[in-house]
Amino acid sequence: MPDLHPAPAELPVEADAVIIGAGPVGLFQAFQLGLHGIHSHIVDALPHSGGQPVELYPDKPIYDIPGTRVCTGRELAQSLLEQVAPFQPTMHLGQEVTQLETQPDGRFLLATSAGTRLLARTVFIAAGVGAFQPRALKAPGADRLEGGPLRYRLGDPAQYAGRRVVINGGEDAALDAALALAALPPPQRPAQITLLHRRDVFQAEAARVDAMRAAVAQGAISLRIGQVAGFDTAPPEHHEAADGDASPLMTAVRVLDADGQERAMPADQLLAFLGVSPRLGPVTQWGLDIERKQLRVDTESFSTSVRGIYAVGDVNTYPGKRKLILSGFHECTLAAFAAAELISGQPVHLQYTTTSPRLHALLGVATPQRD
Amino acid sequence: MPDLHPAPAELPVEADAVIIGAGPVGLFQAFQLGLHGIHSHIVDALPHSGGQPVELYPDKPIYDIPGTRVCTGRELAQSLLEQVAPFQPTMHLGQEVTQLETQPDGRFLLATSAGTRLLARTVFIAAGVGAFQPRALKAPGADRLEGGPLRYRLGDPAQYAGRRVVINGGEDAALDAALALAALPPPQRPAQITLLHRRDVFQAEAARVDAMRAAVAQGAISLRIGQVAGFDTAPPEHHEAADGDASPLMTAVRVLDADGQERAMPADQLLAFLGVSPRLGPVTQWGLDIERKQLRVDTESFSTSVRGIYAVGDVNTYPGKRKLILSGFHECTLAAFAAAELISGQPVHLQYTTTSPRLHALLGVATPQRD
Repeated sequence: MPDLHPAPAELPVEADAVIIGAGPVGLFQAFQLGLHGIHSHIVDALPHSGGQPVELYPDKPIYDIPGTRVCTGRELAQSLLEQVAPFQPTMHLGQEVTQLETQPDGRFLLATSAGTRLLARTVFIAAGVGAFQPRALKAPGADRLEGGPLRYRLGDPAQYAGRRVVINGGEDAALDAALALAALPPPQRPAQITLLHRRDVFQAEAARVDAMRAAVAQGAISLRIGQVAGFDTAPPEHHEAADGDASPLMTAVRVLDADGQERAMPADQLLAFLGVSPRLGPVTQWGLDIERKQLRVDTESFSTSVRGIYAVGDVNTYPGKRKLILSGFHECTLAAFAAAELISGQPVHLQYTTTSPRLHALLGVATPQRD
Repeated sequence: MPDLHPAPAELPVEADAVIIGAGPVGLFQAFQLGLHGIHSHIVDALPHSGGQPVELYPDKPIYDIPGTRVCTGRELAQSLLEQVAPFQPTMHLGQEVTQLETQPDGRFLLATSAGTRLLARTVFIAAGVGAFQPRALKAPGADRLEGGPLRYRLGDPAQYAGRRVVINGGEDAALDAALALAALPPPQRPAQITLLHRRDVFQAEAARVDAMRAAVAQGAISLRIGQVAGFDTAPPEHHEAADGDASPLMTAVRVLDADGQERAMPADQLLAFLGVSPRLGPVTQWGLDIERKQLRVDTESFSTSVRGIYAVGDVNTYPGKRKLILSGFHECTLAAFAAAELISGQPVHLQYTTTSPRLHALLGVATPQRD
C-alpha cells in the first residue's frame, strides 16, 4: 500500500542570479551584481574558485590587469575574492551545471552534477573555455578501462587496500594521491604504490616533492620514469562481467621506459592525474545561439539569445571580441546593469563607488566626509 | 629684399599614436598600445597625469577597479603610471589640443595651446568630460577683468612686485600661490597679500595649511573670510587702453564679509583659484559624429566616424554605455588592437602577457621557465 503522505520533492533554491563559473569574470560578476543589491549563487566544476588562472597558471605573472602592474593567477583570484567578500555569494563548487530549463514563469531551473537545484531569475554564463575535466590518458585501450582499472580521481583511498596501484602524473594531484595512499595504515594500504612520470622532474609544490622523495627513499612509494604505452588485460573469457559495459580486468600497465623499451608492469589499478582540460559540455545544449563554440551576445547587455541569460568572458563572442580578462570585467558589469533592470523592471542609473552612500552601505564601508 | 634662405618652419613630431587625455584610460591606452610595440604621445590640459580621479577625488576611495579592493584616485593613477612605465610614453602636459586636421596622406596634424605640433597616424581621444579649465569667478563684472586684474593662474610671481594682491580660494592651488608670493624677497614681493576664502576651513594638504597659518601669524599674509561680490574699477576716462579689448583698472575687490556686510577691499590684482571644471572644447570642432556631447563609436574598434581616430572612456557613447573606468579599460584595449591592425595593415592576433615571450621583451620582464 502506497504511503498516503509522501515526502514532497525537495524544492529548488530560489535565486535572483546564478553564475556559472567561479573564475575571475564569474567572481567580478557577483561583485557587480552585489553593487545592485543582487545576491549571487556561483557554481563551478572545480573544487576551488579562481578558474583558469588558478588551475592553469597559479604562479605565473599577469601584466595586463588594469591598475595592477603584475600579479599571479592565484593572487588575482585572491584579490577578486576579497573584493566580492562583502556580498557573500553562495558557492557551489566541485559540481557542473548539467541542466538548464526555462520555466513557464520565465525563470530558469538549473541542476548540477551534485544534485543542487536552483530556480533563477537570471543566469550568467561565465564558463570560460568550459568546465575543467581531468585530461584523458591517450594510450591504446584506455577508453575501455575508464571507470574501472583506470580512474582520474582518487576517491576513497581505502578502496585500494592490498592492490597494486600505479599513479601516473607529475603535478600536485599525482603526488597528493601517492602520499595519501602511502600514509594509510597497513590494512588499508595498497600492496604496492608506484608513481609513474615521464621524467624525474615534478611540477609540484617543493614541500610535496620533498615528501614524495622521502617516501621513495623509505620504500613506501616506488618511482618509475616512463610513459604509459598500453595495457595487458585478462582475456574476456576470464572476466565475468555483470553487464556488457563492464571494464575488462587489467593485469599490467605497459610502460615505455626511459631506455626506449616497453615493459609490462603488473598492476591492478591505474590512477592518472594528467591535468585538466576544458569542455563546454551541457552549455551547448540549452538552445542558445552559438558560433564556433562561443555564445553569441549583444554588446549592450551581453545577453545571449535567451532573455535573462547572459554570457560574459571567454565563453562569449561578438564583433571585435578578444579573450582578455579585462574585457570580461567590462562585459559582466554591463550584464549586471541589464539584469538589475530586468529584475527591477525599471531603468537603473549609474552610481559611483567613490560617492554613493547606497553603494557604501552595500559594501559595508564608511562614506567619506564632505567639505 | 626678402631673405633668400628663410629658416624652414619647424617640422611637426611624427607619431604613430597621440592620446588626448592622461587620465586612467589615456594611461592604459598607452599601455595597451605598448603591448603592440606602438609608442604613444600623451597630451593633457592639466599640469599632471591622472585626470579626473587625481583632480577631483585624489584621496577618496574607489571600490570597483577589478582586482583592486580599494584605492584612492591618486593611487590608481600611480599604479597605472607604473604599469605603463616600460613603454615610456612622451608626455605633453599643461596644454590642450586646439587643432586637429586630417592631412592628404590620412595622418592627423595636431597642435596644442603650447605650440607642440604632432603628425599622428592614429589619435585616441580619452578626454573624459573634457579638458579641465580653471573654474570662472561668478561675480558681476568678472568677465571684463579677466586676463588683466583678474587671473586664474599665478604665472611669474615677480610680476606682482609692490602690488596689492588678493588670492581667492581654499584649496591647494590658492595656498600655494599665497605662500609663493609671501616667500619672495622684499623687492619682488607684493605690497600686500590677502588670502580670501568663504570660510575658515581649507581643503588642502595639512602641511600647506600649517605653513599658511604661520605666514598669517607673522603678518606676511592677511587672511579674510568672505566672498567676492563685485569690483570697483577706475572710470573709463582715467584708463588709457592700448586697444578696445583692454581690461579696465580695478581699484578694489568688493567683499561680502562673514557679517553679511559688503565692503570694498582696495586691491590691484585678484588671483582666483576656484578649482577646475571640464570643457569638451575643440574636440567638438573636428567633424566627428557627436551625440549629446559624446563621440559616437562602434563597439568593435571604438573608432569614431573618422578612420584612425578612436574615442575611449567617458568621452564616447554607444548603446549600453556606462561611464565607468573599467569600461574605458576594455574600450582602449580593443581600440589598440584596431589601431595596430590599421598601422601594420594586417590582422593582429591576441597574445597573453602570461606566456608571450614577445610581450615579455616589450615589458622588459623575464619569460618564466617552462617544464
